[in-house]
Amino acid sequence: MAEDFKVTPWEVTGAIDYDVLMKRFGTTPIDQALLERLAKYGKVHPMLRRGIFYTHRDLDWLLDRYDQGDRFVLYTGRGPSGNTHLGHLMPWIFNKWVQDIFKVDMLFQMTDDEKFLFKDLTLHDTRSMAYENALDFVALGFDPDHTRIIVDTENIKTLYPVALRVAKKITLSTAKAVFGFNGASNIGSIFFTSMEAVPAFLPSEEAGRPVPVLIPAGIDQDPHFRVARDVAPGLSYPKPCMLYCKMFPGLNGGDKMSSSDENATIYTTDTPKAVKKKVGRAFTGGCVSVEEQRQKGGNPEVCAVFKYNYYLFEYDDVKLNELADKCRRGEILCGECKVALTQKINVFLEAHQAKREEAKEIVQKMTYGGFKW
Amino acid sequence: MAEDFKVTPWEVTGAIDYDVLMKRFGTTPIDQALLERLAKYGKVHPMLRRGIFYTHRDLDWLLDRYDQGDRFVLYTGRGPSGNTHLGHLMPWIFNKWVQDIFKVDMLFQMTDDEKFLFKDLTLHDTRSMAYENALDFVALGFDPDHTRIIVDTENIKTLYPVALRVAKKITLSTAKAVFGFNGASNIGSIFFTSMEAVPAFLPSEEAGRPVPVLIPAGIDQDPHFRVARDVAPGLSYPKPCMLYCKMFPGLNGGDKMSSSDENATIYTTDTPKAVKKKVGRAFTGGCVSVEEQRQKGGNPEVCAVFKYNYYLFEYDDVKLNELADKCRRGEILCGECKVALTQKINVFLEAHQAKREEAKEIVQKMTYGGFKW
Repeated sequence: MAEDFKVTPWEVTGAIDYDVLMKRFGTTPIDQALLERLAKYGKVHPMLRRGIFYTHRDLDWLLDRYDQGDRFVLYTGRGPSGNTHLGHLMPWIFNKWVQDIFKVDMLFQMTDDEKFLFKDLTLHDTRSMAYENALDFVALGFDPDHTRIIVDTENIKTLYPVALRVAKKITLSTAKAVFGFNGASNIGSIFFTSMEAVPAFLPSEEAGRPVPVLIPAGIDQDPHFRVARDVAPGLSYPKPCMLYCKMFPGLNGGDKMSSSDENATIYTTDTPKAVKKKVGRAFTGGCVSVEEQRQKGGNPEVCAVFKYNYYLFEYDDVKLNELADKCRRGEILCGECKVALTQKINVFLEAHQAKREEAKEIVQKMTYGGFKW
Repeated sequence: MAEDFKVTPWEVTGAIDYDVLMKRFGTTPIDQALLERLAKYGKVHPMLRRGIFYTHRDLDWLLDRYDQGDRFVLYTGRGPSGNTHLGHLMPWIFNKWVQDIFKVDMLFQMTDDEKFLFKDLTLHDTRSMAYENALDFVALGFDPDHTRIIVDTENIKTLYPVALRVAKKITLSTAKAVFGFNGASNIGSIFFTSMEAVPAFLPSEEAGRPVPVLIPAGIDQDPHFRVARDVAPGLSYPKPCMLYCKMFPGLNGGDKMSSSDENATIYTTDTPKAVKKKVGRAFTGGCVSVEEQRQKGGNPEVCAVFKYNYYLFEYDDVKLNELADKCRRGEILCGECKVALTQKINVFLEAHQAKREEAKEIVQKMTYGGFKW
């Protein structure tokens, strides 16, 4: 059954059909014309070319405004509930590309309140995680002079008045319909979407005029921004524009890398040995025996190792296609592929971990309003 | 129909039967034994003696703790939606008495967020009103060294983490059952009760140990504190103790003075002329003609002018009883009674307005955390 999956900001289950999801949410596909338009600003990122960022809301309008000299602000975020993994890094890497290409300011919201409300975590836990996650964000090289990190509980004095304005416009009926709340939902979780809306409106609030905002994020966040877009006109803010990506897959072959399966999840702080072990256990498209695979070939379509190359670790299209062909012809076995991916990940992580150490010096400078970590 | 009335934090309608209300809410009457116990700490306030503050939750437990040397913190508040009237002052005057008798610290919460969420007001409106209302509170003479005024949007950084902990413990089902929310309720209003709970827990939070809290307030606030008391044990806070008063009546004979009928409402900033006019139009227990009243006498039970003497302006029991007797015997007419009350109110307001001016110098010192008005 194609529809047998569920995507909400708090839960992703089943095999996701991203085309069906796009139709369900009512977002617009990124077509060839839009890709060509984007190419005018700089080399199009592989995540766009490969359809990882694949759907949007009002991106064309945002580019029209940009062409008329109206610079937008970039906004994305993180719910700090655990260590950062590759699935978190992926959209942040894309945001970094957008900042570089368009030379824009960036807001990064860490919803420590959300994770407290929705998970079995203390506020101390989520606040500590916010710091750890922020190091990974900063390590990606965002411009420290044009990037501000918001932590909800730290910046609440700025956020709360805007969140109240948003909350006043959202009925319980809407919240229940969009997020599926029921009688057992806690009243903080019902209010929370107002907080996630705030950074979409903060640039206008600060500038005292309408400032366009672009939010590149996982498509699971669309329910929040559908609601935020609905209330925006009534508050005299422009509707935020959206650029949505697919979920980063798990090593177990699942559609979304998740900390609930630690063995299928590569954390930014993993050791080379841990990475080797995890990739070694990855779900692949190989056959049960070497002989059979040499004869029949593998299936890169379903292979987690191939997906990792596709999403993050092999941005050279020629090399990627070669890899797929060799797999299909049985010329490369899963073991070899895993060794190669392990090495790529470890090269990436070694550099990332070094930058993550340097980030400890920079992260204070990037706090919104100068709160102390 | 005795039950044909409604009392919620946002709406009071119908003729209130306070005994029925007490049973409905499940609070305990203040009996003679408790009054006698209270007399040991100082002269019992007329509002207690006359059953205006008439019901409680765990006041005996609070006094036990106090007797063992465990000082409580006093907490009451105001939703700043308009100018202060006598109905607001009444419980504050009582709180002042409690502070004087027990020598305790006091928190005064101004819920500007609440009034924004529940009324057709801007945050700018409610924030301005908070200042105006605070002047009236300060004018009553609370100890500036032991009294702190909280404004929700100003103190949100301190309040929010505690509100989140409270909110996580309250289900939507509970909020709907207690407050009567429905699909059209905005999601901020549903969250709000968490904010009103915070000052009940803040003293424990600040001290790092359980600190008893006494909340003398209008009984219409009980739904908030019923919920706060329910969640307290799960958060390792003591349950706040409650002391509830009846609503201050309107001059029109209604059960609650309300800004929705300006002519029946005496504001703290009213001129002597305005007071004269409003009292002159008050609903009384008089007869249609002077002759009839001389013959049959009036009915102080239903008379707004008499109630004002009873609630606030004649604390001498002998004089009050004399007044009632003279009324019943037709020896005093409504006109005379109105003149006398007008004078008492104007004497009170003249002094209050002078202290309200002086409050402008003191009010800054009393802000929680030192925010600027």
